[in-house]
Amino acid sequence: MGIALGANRYGKSGVHLVVVDRDAPQHTITDWQIDIRLEGDFDAAHIHGDNRAVVPTDTMRGTVFAFARTQPVGQPEDFGLRLARHFVATIPSVTVATVRLRATPWVRIGEHPSAFTADASVVRTAEVRVDGEGSHVTAGITDLRIFKTSDSAFADFHTDDFTTLDPTDDRMMATVMTAEWRYGDTDIEWDASASAVRDILLSAFATHDSASLQHTLFAMGSAVLEQRPEITDVHLLLPNAHHLLVDLTPYGLDNPNRVFVSTTEPYGVIEATVVRD
Amino acid sequence: MGIALGANRYGKSGVHLVVVDRDAPQHTITDWQIDIRLEGDFDAAHIHGDNRAVVPTDTMRGTVFAFARTQPVGQPEDFGLRLARHFVATIPSVTVATVRLRATPWVRIGEHPSAFTADASVVRTAEVRVDGEGSHVTAGITDLRIFKTSDSAFADFHTDDFTTLDPTDDRMMATVMTAEWRYGDTDIEWDASASAVRDILLSAFATHDSASLQHTLFAMGSAVLEQRPEITDVHLLLPNAHHLLVDLTPYGLDNPNRVFVSTTEPYGVIEATVVRD
Amino acid sequence: MGIALGANRYGKSGVHLVVVDRDAPQHTITDWQIDIRLEGDFDAAHIHGDNRAVVPTDTMRGTVFAFARTQPVGQPEDFGLRLARHFVATIPSVTVATVRLRATPWVRIGEHPSAFTADASVVRTAEVRVDGEGSHVTAGITDLRIFKTSDSAFADFHTDDFTTLDPTDDRMMATVMTAEWRYGDTDIEWDASASAVRDILLSAFATHDSASLQHTLFAMGSAVLEQRPEITDVHLLLPNAHHLLVDLTPYGLDNPNRVFVSTTEPYGVIEATVVRD
Amino acid sequence: MGIALGANRYGKSGVHLVVVDRDAPQHTITDWQIDIRLEGDFDAAHIHGDNRAVVPTDTMRGTVFAFARTQPVGQPEDFGLRLARHFVATIPSVTVATVRLRATPWVRIGEHPSAFTADASVVRTAEVRVDGEGSHVTAGITDLRIFKTSDSAFADFHTDDFTTLDPTDDRMMATVMTAEWRYGDTDIEWDASASAVRDILLSAFATHDSASLQHTLFAMGSAVLEQRPEITDVHLLLPNAHHLLVDLTPYGLDNPNRVFVSTTEPYGVIEATVVRD
Repeated sequence: MGIALGANRYGKSGVHLVVVDRDAPQHTITDWQIDIRLEGDFDAAHIHGDNRAVVPTDTMRGTVFAFARTQPVGQPEDFGLRLARHFVATIPSVTVATVRLRATPWVRIGEHPSAFTADASVVRTAEVRVDGEGSHVTAGITDLRIFKTSDSAFADFHTDDFTTLDPTDDRMMATVMTAEWRYGDTDIEWDASASAVRDILLSAFATHDSASLQHTLFAMGSAVLEQRPEITDVHLLLPNAHHLLVDLTPYGLDNPNRVFVSTTEPYGVIEATVVRD
Repeated sequence: MGIALGANRYGKSGVHLVVVDRDAPQHTITDWQIDIRLEGDFDAAHIHGDNRAVVPTDTMRGTVFAFARTQPVGQPEDFGLRLARHFVATIPSVTVATVRLRATPWVRIGEHPSAFTADASVVRTAEVRVDGEGSHVTAGITDLRIFKTSDSAFADFHTDDFTTLDPTDDRMMATVMTAEWRYGDTDIEWDASASAVRDILLSAFATHDSASLQHTLFAMGSAVLEQRPEITDVHLLLPNAHHLLVDLTPYGLDNPNRVFVSTTEPYGVIEATVVRD
Repeated sequence: MGIALGANRYGKSGVHLVVVDRDAPQHTITDWQIDIRLEGDFDAAHIHGDNRAVVPTDTMRGTVFAFARTQPVGQPEDFGLRLARHFVATIPSVTVATVRLRATPWVRIGEHPSAFTADASVVRTAEVRVDGEGSHVTAGITDLRIFKTSDSAFADFHTDDFTTLDPTDDRMMATVMTAEWRYGDTDIEWDASASAVRDILLSAFATHDSASLQHTLFAMGSAVLEQRPEITDVHLLLPNAHHLLVDLTPYGLDNPNRVFVSTTEPYGVIEATVVRD
Repeated sequence: MGIALGANRYGKSGVHLVVVDRDAPQHTITDWQIDIRLEGDFDAAHIHGDNRAVVPTDTMRGTVFAFARTQPVGQPEDFGLRLARHFVATIPSVTVATVRLRATPWVRIGEHPSAFTADASVVRTAEVRVDGEGSHVTAGITDLRIFKTSDSAFADFHTDDFTTLDPTDDRMMATVMTAEWRYGDTDIEWDASASAVRDILLSAFATHDSASLQHTLFAMGSAVLEQRPEITDVHLLLPNAHHLLVDLTPYGLDNPNRVFVSTTEPYGVIEATVVRD
């Protein structure tokens, strides 16, 4: 029995591209952190130290910067598609290229043409994969903190010898949402679609009568699939940001769902994909 | 020559209080991370292991939660004053109490009465110090990312054998602002004042014709003092979030202030207090 | 076309268990951060809000603490196996349980029986998965920073229009190693095996004449498989912690591979599994 | 009443210098993260945008790299003194220069001459301040996690209406130590002194019969001053890494100081300077 190379990939992470467009009186900022991964036939490099098939990660970085100059960068998915297709088309050893982008939005200060603040609450992500079967686009929202102060219960769950949680028909529900959704093709108005998905997710979260975080997750994913035909499935990762009711009886006080302590560890994690069938 | 106890203080950090007010149909969320520090005569505890003067940090935490129930919490500065005055007034060994609060704002989702998103771009801070001379309040804004794509230069600086930077009359200026300002008394509409200061700082940043980050810092601080008589001085901490023009000549391309790489290290830091004289 | 629940899992993260054994005069500390994930039939919870199949994540936490009392915890893999088997065996809805552990080692201060320092350079991980096919154990080392000041080259690589990197036969090589390896069965002396793997990886890294980080990765993985028959494959994740030679010519100085700047972004990432065939 | 510039300083942070010495067969690595701050007369820059007194932070970085080439770098304090004295001596506007260094130790892998692992448990710091009164050196240890499983009590403390903590004569004590100590002059074997201080602190922590973290802090600081005459005072910052005894009674189990949960928030912080008088 011998030893061989199994699955492998490599690339550049943390390429922080900022493109400033000052052609019009109202400037704009594009701010993307970009990760690139390549897969293909790199056996010779690993096994024999023969680098002829290896494109340096430094070249990947250079390609990002050059591409940002030769054409308008467009939306994150557009730029990811350009990059990923380039790597697969021009590097003989490469069969799969994946590009991830994390976009920080810069919002104009008032009406000022050239001054901005970052809005961390609308960070969005995109992942483009180009392989032998074509181009695949996933878009997302990351790190969006959301909180529901009513219409959230958790009761009638499985119990055993290690159960200590009391069932409740009224609890605080908070999470830091990471959502990713896949598209069926690549001819999409990406920004408009992402913005619509964000609104649908928030609305579904706000209006749901929740029996559990799982229950709300499915309602959120379903709402997206119902309203956005261009999307094939939705993945939601919802850590449960616990808010524990503080026991105030040692101080002679009641606590009718008013004073909570927010804890970071341990925390529940609920994760699922909602699909079309 | 002997050994003695010098300056000392202790307390509880990271008390994450969340108060949900559901008395009105439109719910509200108060979300504060609180640090408490006490100073006073704790020689016996340190030197002899005699704890009779020491209030456990656990008690500080309990006081936060109990106080959040017995009265409306009000604005961060109000709650900080209540806590700090309580510790100085009721614990014989304590001569100085300092309470820091970091407030995360929760913004209603649309018109929904009980669903919220966090807006990390308007986190504000408050620090209350109560000592033998009275009560002192400092308020602040933290981690606000701002960017200016025009009207920023840096030239005519001191040069020596180790200078490599080229002077420029047109550069990108970006920073992650932390501002703190002190009040002359404690009878203030805290939230309204903080909101006004935020607007003044952003407006001054946006409209300034900048010869350096120092120059803009002073303009920002001055604008606050000119417009807000209740404030005695302003401290600004402005790390320089460098955006370096990428050299595209290896790819046969020019780069007329369009494609930048954002770097995290090393970074400049500019820090100053603007005062009344 | 309808909407359905796809892949899903949930559990508790960040359960930080510390077990102190004081039965013998020489105390010992077990310090584990534990994540649990369960998979199974949770359709009713997601789709209908019916929680009868759902074990609360709070119960998972309780199970950890109770299990830590009822038997000696043993090595991380032992405890992970106990937990994962328990969840699959006792909860009807659960078909797969995965337990991840991150172990912080506490090293005795000198010969002292009850005082310790943490050694962050030997953190190790374990992941146990129990499913319908049996029990599967993966062990690992995480965040081990390693550096090679000779015998590292990178040349003769693929070039194109975006290449700027110069080939070199002498560069610094540094990485923050994360290694994970799988076992063929569960009757293993886990700590001894992990310790041996760590030594093999470090030795292979130290003595390799490297043509690239890929080349060294394969040598490291191969060495493990050659010397440890209990291991079926090895996954290595090696970010390239770049050390760039500083250009000192502006200061009239040469730099014969002596003065470097360590940069954090962007960074290369090399990742592969070395397998038996 | 006018507006003026108050206290101010500026500089470069995060200059990550790595010097590799390959002159001898056994290579060595020096790995320092360096922050520089300058104070002086910068009124014209702030108020009028006149940069003639301002040395760019880019020049500070260049000075670090050039100095690393022109002489052996020596120990962190040596290099900090060289840098700080240079800035005060050669830049007319500068009256105070402060240099902070954080040194990551790289430990040889076995006997190998050119392969290393980082040992995060012995990170040390140095801060050099040069001003009109001379040169002042502070050295330190940072982020050293220590744990005591016996000889730690906390009882007989102050109680009031908000007390819930039970007194105990036997608890776990853990902290993440940051220590800094000042020297009376600059003619010191820095590495040897720091190494000795580290041993003294650990030994004092291990052997102390503790009535509180304050009590142990003072014992640790006193031990340093008693044994190291070159040191004038010691500052210790000791966050209390709480290990809470888990209540196992819901599972029908006792818990004789055996099973603990380690929590990160909230946490106590004890801080003091031990001085000579």
